[in-house]
Amino acid sequence: MSQPAGPEIDRLIQLLAKLPGLGPRSARRAALQLIKDRRRLMVPLAESLHAAAEAIVTCGQCGNVDTSDPCHICGDGRRDPSLLCVVEDIADLWALERAKAFKGRYHVLGGVLSALDGIGPEDLTFDALLARARAPDMVEVIIATSATVDGQTTAHYLADRLADCDVAVSRLAHGVPVGGELDYLDDGTLNAALTARRKL
Amino acid sequence: MSQPAGPEIDRLIQLLAKLPGLGPRSARRAALQLIKDRRRLMVPLAESLHAAAEAIVTCGQCGNVDTSDPCHICGDGRRDPSLLCVVEDIADLWALERAKAFKGRYHVLGGVLSALDGIGPEDLTFDALLARARAPDMVEVIIATSATVDGQTTAHYLADRLADCDVAVSRLAHGVPVGGELDYLDDGTLNAALTARRKL
Repeated sequence: MSQPAGPEIDRLIQLLAKLPGLGPRSARRAALQLIKDRRRLMVPLAESLHAAAEAIVTCGQCGNVDTSDPCHICGDGRRDPSLLCVVEDIADLWALERAKAFKGRYHVLGGVLSALDGIGPEDLTFDALLARARAPDMVEVIIATSATVDGQTTAHYLADRLADCDVAVSRLAHGVPVGGELDYLDDGTLNAALTARRKL
Repeated sequence: MSQPAGPEIDRLIQLLAKLPGLGPRSARRAALQLIKDRRRLMVPLAESLHAAAEAIVTCGQCGNVDTSDPCHICGDGRRDPSLLCVVEDIADLWALERAKAFKGRYHVLGGVLSALDGIGPEDLTFDALLARARAPDMVEVIIATSATVDGQTTAHYLADRLADCDVAVSRLAHGVPVGGELDYLDDGTLNAALTARRKL
């Protein structure tokens, strides 16, 4: 659908519509907001994107993105080098970091095994993970893939591959989310929570 | 909520979160998408924003944004200069243009009268509108403000102000949206549609 404004605005809307969470309609709204607030929003956003595109690199150790390689997590001497948390995606790493739940290091797989999408072990960073797991000071690998079918498949496959490394392998607990009401939970979660019940 | 990545990413997420339709969570997802697809999305978006910020001007006649002043609508000799469609916002102008519903010129008010938000006649482009309505070749002013309380108030106020100009004043019809099911419509729309019923 062409816009009644110049090609610059057309192109801007097309690019904005590629962002997750923005469709053609909200991309138009966003473009208009940017145009209306040129000085405080459009120009700073353009500069921020340029700065980020220049500065951001992928960490060669864990796969996180940061302005340094190794990233500030891998480079932080206070973090426990004997614990490795395996996540599917950088977004999952960010989520765990926001929760301040983990004080070890991460390993980003870059996805999960998926027969449907044709993603096999060679498409993910398994080899680098195995090499890290075999490091002499590694004690435990925590598999934090999603609780989806593909995520679970990947976790099981990883546990198999890690079996001959000299590390403990664990995965995140399943159960009732904190603050969650039982009434709204699916059967799978309730079953998992009941099976993994703990003594009070 | 701080991000576990550098200040460049923090700043990018903060700016993206200011766009309409994006909250903090979707801004993080958008930032990650941009970072992952740097070459095809991040750099082009930065360049597009720069180009738009440089090129886009507000049309001195109608208030539209375009790369030229007057805009390509005001500058288009094939459009009827005797018809003027008054809209609240550039987004409304774009919507009418997408519908290819109108072949005259536009006037963007820049908002609606609102006692609640303290927006009075002096905050909108009423004076410029009255000057355009008094042009010798002007025949009809179509008021296309929203069907909200403030939009209707503005329409009535405008009709009063335009009474001493030598032009016909009309407003958009209210009724059942094309494709709309009666069952899902509000009482106000149904009442308006019934009151304004037309002979078949």
